[in-house]
Amino acid sequence: MVTIVNAPSLPSAAAAAAAETPDAGPSSTHRVALDALLDLVGDDLTRVNQTILDRMHSPIALIPQLAGHIVAAGGKRLRPLLTLAAARLVGYEGDRHISLAACIEFLHTATLLHDDVVDESDKRRGRDTANAIWGNKPSVLVGDFLFARAFELMVEDGSLEVMGILARASAVISEGEIHQLLTSNNIETVEEDYIQVVGAKTAALFAAATRIGGVAAERPRAELDALDAYGRNLGIAFQITDDFLDYSAREAELGKSIGDDFRDGKLTLPVIHAIAHGDDEERAFWRRCLEEQDFSDPHGEADLAHAMTLLARHGALEETVRRAHAYAEAARRALDIFPDSRIKTILTEVVDFSVERAY
Amino acid sequence: MVTIVNAPSLPSAAAAAAAETPDAGPSSTHRVALDALLDLVGDDLTRVNQTILDRMHSPIALIPQLAGHIVAAGGKRLRPLLTLAAARLVGYEGDRHISLAACIEFLHTATLLHDDVVDESDKRRGRDTANAIWGNKPSVLVGDFLFARAFELMVEDGSLEVMGILARASAVISEGEIHQLLTSNNIETVEEDYIQVVGAKTAALFAAATRIGGVAAERPRAELDALDAYGRNLGIAFQITDDFLDYSAREAELGKSIGDDFRDGKLTLPVIHAIAHGDDEERAFWRRCLEEQDFSDPHGEADLAHAMTLLARHGALEETVRRAHAYAEAARRALDIFPDSRIKTILTEVVDFSVERAY
Repeated sequence: MVTIVNAPSLPSAAAAAAAETPDAGPSSTHRVALDALLDLVGDDLTRVNQTILDRMHSPIALIPQLAGHIVAAGGKRLRPLLTLAAARLVGYEGDRHISLAACIEFLHTATLLHDDVVDESDKRRGRDTANAIWGNKPSVLVGDFLFARAFELMVEDGSLEVMGILARASAVISEGEIHQLLTSNNIETVEEDYIQVVGAKTAALFAAATRIGGVAAERPRAELDALDAYGRNLGIAFQITDDFLDYSAREAELGKSIGDDFRDGKLTLPVIHAIAHGDDEERAFWRRCLEEQDFSDPHGEADLAHAMTLLARHGALEETVRRAHAYAEAARRALDIFPDSRIKTILTEVVDFSVERAY
Repeated sequence: MVTIVNAPSLPSAAAAAAAETPDAGPSSTHRVALDALLDLVGDDLTRVNQTILDRMHSPIALIPQLAGHIVAAGGKRLRPLLTLAAARLVGYEGDRHISLAACIEFLHTATLLHDDVVDESDKRRGRDTANAIWGNKPSVLVGDFLFARAFELMVEDGSLEVMGILARASAVISEGEIHQLLTSNNIETVEEDYIQVVGAKTAALFAAATRIGGVAAERPRAELDALDAYGRNLGIAFQITDDFLDYSAREAELGKSIGDDFRDGKLTLPVIHAIAHGDDEERAFWRRCLEEQDFSDPHGEADLAHAMTLLARHGALEETVRRAHAYAEAARRALDIFPDSRIKTILTEVVDFSVERAY
């Protein structure tokens, strides 16, 4: 009954770069950073994509169909690129980074599938989510499959150290996701909670992605820790910027919707800052919108406009950008122990991209 | 904001045995098999339970709360018991089987959490499911956490062979679950599909559980394969019996509801057999009930009664029991290569229990 179909094709490195940089506006300098990274490790990324295609195969045709939908959805491949780049930075010349980068993408994809189920999302990057097309059930189970497949790849790689890093990261990611559930719709959430959530749900995989690039090359502990710190701080800067963009005028200028987090009642850094500095009346407003999700018009437009006013009143967006830049600076500094090189320059520019991108 | 709470306590080995054997009726002989197994490895099981408690800890209090709810729900601990028993059978004297058995239970629990979300179940063993209490979101994410934690335990154990076995089993289990989704509500499903589904979703973990007991003891390949065959055939026999019981008069006598699979449109062995031997009119009946889920009364009672008549007409329940016994016999035979011992006798009786239990 079950037939095997060809797995969907994946975008080439060049197409991935183009998909990731739809605008040549304010971020064009940083587009250069990602292009340069793809120039340097594009051949490796092609091999990673092939490994992903090969290893999401299953006699159950729905698995490569559904997994292919999300894997081919035009993501940046930022996390596997970080593994490739880290390996390059430390002069690694073997092949292990290819399958390790594929592992990272599998873990990330599994997380996205489960996230979309948990968030009841119907769109990701403008396309229908897997759960919107196939329903929650296969999305949960294909996520499980990809997670297991990632560990199979690790076993083939054969490093207990890598496996320990990625098993730990996986546990931390789910802790972060659960912690985030608990902060949602809760205006008592403070910045410390937020940074813990972001450090776990986003930055743990960035840190693991860069660290295992160094582990593949069997580099000394100090270099592994530096790669870890680079990835971790980059990941936090990246996520803070994501959360900033949801309230950003620049996002609105690009024709993207803003305020999704507001309508979902997510406690991200901009609102946490505004709440911390607001008076009782403002607090009542945030409670009504974020906790009770009781909006004064059907789409919450008037409330979002008022929220933007409060964010401006307290300089919350500027403060959010400042935080992102502080983590970005820590990421850059983490690279200090490595000698100057083309790839080191590019990794520095990737940090700039992470905080200055408009998408 | 997040506070740490004490993890819930787990039932003792004796309480677990009692919980699993609520009736002293037709299964009392087989209750003796499980009691005997608990007598032999009860101390080990106590240590497994302690490891489970220790390792489901997280600073996010919801994790041990939710995981504890399902872990402590009075399951048989059959799968971890199989790891302990397999290790005992091959004369293992170390400690690795304790954490490996805990791994198996974590993987099983993760699967149950996701299953209950996928099946939209609100009861398991008569108690509210985690998703019924806390919702789908934390159930999916705590499942992910337990899965990751299982791999952390494997890394600590340090055997790539064990990790390979369990990563592979995990991938196969999710393939089986997805395959099962595709057979649901599809009366074209044939016995081969069913056996593939059961072999993957249930028997793969039984086989892995017994095999790693032998791996811990570093036994030769032939013994590992025998343990694997024992677990695999036992698992298939166990699941076929489960599916039989859903249409069993004995189940009804015990006051348990029957026909859940019928109402859900699951293509289990009894109906697959009846459909294969039915005429066009019967086929139309099965299509209406199982595919279209269009019942003639609100709870499908009249249709269930007719389904039972059709099962009886084609001897489908007897045939199902015959199949279960054939797999049970294969499980028993797999033990032939091991010298006679008390634990071997008990493992044989566990097979009898799996096909003759009334619960």
